[in-house]
Amino acid sequence: MSIHIDTPDADVAHRAQRRQLCLTKPPGSLGALEDLAVRIAAWQHADTPSVRPATGILFASDHPVTRHGVSPYPSAVTRAMLENFATGGAAANVLARAADVRLVVVDVGVDGPPTRAPADVAVVRAPVADLPAGDLRVEDAMSEATFKAALTAGRHAVAEALGARAFVLGDMGIGNTTPAAAVCAAVLGGEPGDWVGAGTGAEGAMLDVKRRVVRDAVARLGGETDPWTIVRRVGGREIAALLGAIQAALERRAIVLIDGFVVTAAALALARLEPRAPEGMIFCHRSAERAHGRVLEALNVRPLLDLSMRLGEGSGALLAFPLVDAACRLHGEMATFTSAAVPDRREPE
Amino acid sequence: MSIHIDTPDADVAHRAQRRQLCLTKPPGSLGALEDLAVRIAAWQHADTPSVRPATGILFASDHPVTRHGVSPYPSAVTRAMLENFATGGAAANVLARAADVRLVVVDVGVDGPPTRAPADVAVVRAPVADLPAGDLRVEDAMSEATFKAALTAGRHAVAEALGARAFVLGDMGIGNTTPAAAVCAAVLGGEPGDWVGAGTGAEGAMLDVKRRVVRDAVARLGGETDPWTIVRRVGGREIAALLGAIQAALERRAIVLIDGFVVTAAALALARLEPRAPEGMIFCHRSAERAHGRVLEALNVRPLLDLSMRLGEGSGALLAFPLVDAACRLHGEMATFTSAAVPDRREPE
Repeated sequence: MSIHIDTPDADVAHRAQRRQLCLTKPPGSLGALEDLAVRIAAWQHADTPSVRPATGILFASDHPVTRHGVSPYPSAVTRAMLENFATGGAAANVLARAADVRLVVVDVGVDGPPTRAPADVAVVRAPVADLPAGDLRVEDAMSEATFKAALTAGRHAVAEALGARAFVLGDMGIGNTTPAAAVCAAVLGGEPGDWVGAGTGAEGAMLDVKRRVVRDAVARLGGETDPWTIVRRVGGREIAALLGAIQAALERRAIVLIDGFVVTAAALALARLEPRAPEGMIFCHRSAERAHGRVLEALNVRPLLDLSMRLGEGSGALLAFPLVDAACRLHGEMATFTSAAVPDRREPE
Repeated sequence: MSIHIDTPDADVAHRAQRRQLCLTKPPGSLGALEDLAVRIAAWQHADTPSVRPATGILFASDHPVTRHGVSPYPSAVTRAMLENFATGGAAANVLARAADVRLVVVDVGVDGPPTRAPADVAVVRAPVADLPAGDLRVEDAMSEATFKAALTAGRHAVAEALGARAFVLGDMGIGNTTPAAAVCAAVLGGEPGDWVGAGTGAEGAMLDVKRRVVRDAVARLGGETDPWTIVRRVGGREIAALLGAIQAALERRAIVLIDGFVVTAAALALARLEPRAPEGMIFCHRSAERAHGRVLEALNVRPLLDLSMRLGEGSGALLAFPLVDAACRLHGEMATFTSAAVPDRREPE
């Protein structure tokens, strides 16, 4: 599949760097926020970088692989959490309200009767939710048709957020760190079990099972290297939808805020197909999920936050959103040495 | 001088920990945010921890020690920046607006004619600003009278923020990383020059001068160990005001958000007098100023952010404010497993 991602605008980047030097602060003193502002400006081809309006999209799905016992929570939690999102009680709701980010939840394969959304959050069911999914340990997680429908669900969710300059992406689904680990293992290599972590809290024998499941899934791939085939065969519908959403967002030069392990697995797959893709992504946090830090290192990125979070739901990205917003606002709203009549530093003698 | 700081409420802490276990998320999955919420609740003796309303206070001063050439910027920048704060163009203004934090700037010793404050920020001149200050390299930075007036300026600024549950503290003043380094060196020991960093951008010969200045200042103390005497003799009026402000805020069980090197030097002095004081402080970021990380280690605290910032003005603390606010809101607003009818995890067999 072809990807049409623009190159960052070098002229805009140059102007943004020069503006940073004129703002009333010692050069470089805003640290990572300066780099963020310059990078966002270049990515958006805009002298005034902005991540508003922003839309948060969470993709939710269940996973047949949970039948092996890879999570301490029952699959019914996924559906129950959709109800929780709809009524505004989940962590993602609180964080989205605090950051003033509109939140949409897309059901791409949650078991049980559809969720009504009476409250402040749109919960929509995508057609892919009605297509079959496989147990990635022994069979492909998605058929070609299911995979395409999942990509489409992601692309549609982005297309519907008219005018959004940034997307905060997240995931929900009991069992979904298992496919994420399988995708990372298949893309990055090494002992597959080493990409497995606790997820929502697997430990002891359950963690051993999870490792075996991921090993079996990767073995089934027989050395497959195409990232999309990897996602289709050992991923999950929300990872495929995230892949479609990230791609669609980057194609429209929107900034994508990447959350934890599951979203990063999708970002990794896209980065393998298009090495320039991470330039439009902001890696928001290093989660406590064991392998997440290693995936970030493989992508050669340093996340904004490192707060031992491991919740998913886009929580790390929603928490980092105000930092990214602040970087843009500082770039656009601060006075310059000239406009504020602040003496600049003396030239070195 | 005596300090009257309450003990955190152990019963409230216990209830807050129990509530965290009932919220719709895997236990511990909000990482540092959970610890923050529990700690703030215990500190405030309140089952609903909150950092709103919050007041940001920046203390600004000039320093006779700049005559030796310890900063690449002229002292006139301090006064010019007060004008910039007053008209809303400084980084602190942008960050305070973004975080919805009221900002007050207290002039505790800025040279030049007083600043009018026509715009959105209160710039007030404290009586201490008219008292003499000394060149800490060769004489005491403050007389007893000046020191007391500076402490009072800090206490008054806090007292005037009626009802504030949190204070975001910052500093502004060309040359003020020199007294901050001297205070840290005198309190923590070791080679005094090792506590010296670039500040706004000192390097080469200027950095050598700055190290010599700090060495001379510490030598002048003759092994003095009383933290307040250290601040009085080798500190600065804004560090003394910060000391007074932190103390006054903690005495009223408000939470104090600690910014970078200069504010941390004041926090360090207070922590030496009252070891429980840091329980009411949130260390917001590790700045790029060379010695800041070592001071945080000496205090045995892990900051929320590490973004290579080194601006002062409370910028790191204002940037971290939304994270602390989010921790409180998550604690108060998230649904519980029971209220949302979400199945909890299966008990381990």
